Amino acid sequence: MPKNIKDILIEMKNMSELMVDLAYSALLFNSKDAAEEVIKLENKVNRLNYQIKKESLLAARTVEDAEKLTALLEVGEATETIADSAKDIADLVLKGIKPHPVFKMVMEESDEVITRIKILEGSELSDKSLGELLLATRTGMTVIAIRRNESWIYGPDKNTILSTDDSLIVKGNVTGGSLLLQLANGETKLEDLEYEEFTED
Amino acid sequence: MPKNIKDILIEMKNMSELMVDLAYSALLFNSKDAAEEVIKLENKVNRLNYQIKKESLLAARTVEDAEKLTALLEVGEATETIADSAKDIADLVLKGIKPHPVFKMVMEESDEVITRIKILEGSELSDKSLGELLLATRTGMTVIAIRRNESWIYGPDKNTILSTDDSLIVKGNVTGGSLLLQLANGETKLEDLEYEEFTED
Repeated sequence: MPKNIKDILIEMKNMSELMVDLAYSALLFNSKDAAEEVIKLENKVNRLNYQIKKESLLAARTVEDAEKLTALLEVGEATETIADSAKDIADLVLKGIKPHPVFKMVMEESDEVITRIKILEGSELSDKSLGELLLATRTGMTVIAIRRNESWIYGPDKNTILSTDDSLIVKGNVTGGSLLLQLANGETKLEDLEYEEFTED
Repeated sequence: MPKNIKDILIEMKNMSELMVDLAYSALLFNSKDAAEEVIKLENKVNRLNYQIKKESLLAARTVEDAEKLTALLEVGEATETIADSAKDIADLVLKGIKPHPVFKMVMEESDEVITRIKILEGSELSDKSLGELLLATRTGMTVIAIRRNESWIYGPDKNTILSTDDSLIVKGNVTGGSLLLQLANGETKLEDLEYEEFTED
């Protein structure tokens, strides 16, 4: 049973962080796809919070149990509220509001970049797992979500295998983003990357 | 004036993301310091949202202006709500609740790690800026906040210079975390790091 609550909590934590990222990304890229994904995730977070409540109620046997479990309930509620707020941001995109030019300016000037990168034919990124590629270690870029054909893979992990034509939504700094773009275009090979990092110092 | 709104928006976006990170980190490490920092940030986000409202009202001259500016107001509100929820999580830590063992389990099993790393005497990380160190590119680890003596530096950027005895709160994967720990201990030199990355393939 604690195993169950633990898995739910991990999923809620990862999802709420992903939703905040995706919601801002939807707003800044004016992407209805990303916004729709936030809506789906919000439903999922709500269902997970319902499960947290149910499991916590079942787990409480003693006063001490109950004291410890109230914290879980409160974290569940807070996470659901974060998810709701991300949904509010995504709703703006889906309502088709005219985006204020300031959003584009934020995107351009933020120290952190969120960008969409497509894996082209011939890129070494294809048919490899994120763990194998060590993308975060090598480029400093985190893959937030992957658009594959008509579906999204959100919160990819080290076992997720990339394919040609995948669109990655990635987050990181400008330098890392341009390295990753070159890898995805097939302009740069993985072995060149180490060389580039070396010369950057 | 739009310049002003843009800067406020960047700060709100970065702060709300930082607060969610810090709040979970406070909970998982049972850190009152980190929790108190979340409370301070929440006050700051509230003040920024007030400024967004004021600037938006002053900027609206035409119906079209107003249509575009409502989106800004709504993003400001959503960000404030995210900040409030992060504060709710931090409050649990400050109230001194008995943490449920499940929080520790989440920390241990999550694919992503949030950890605190102290820079020891003799580490190459001292007296260099984050931009110069290329930590994110080299290790895949993002510095969320820095504890220096009695104060915190939150949302450090590429110009932030690290010092001996700084405690870094960092986020990333397990591999990157152990690389960074070795750098901070002085066990590994920056030039060794490239070699290690090379042999990891």
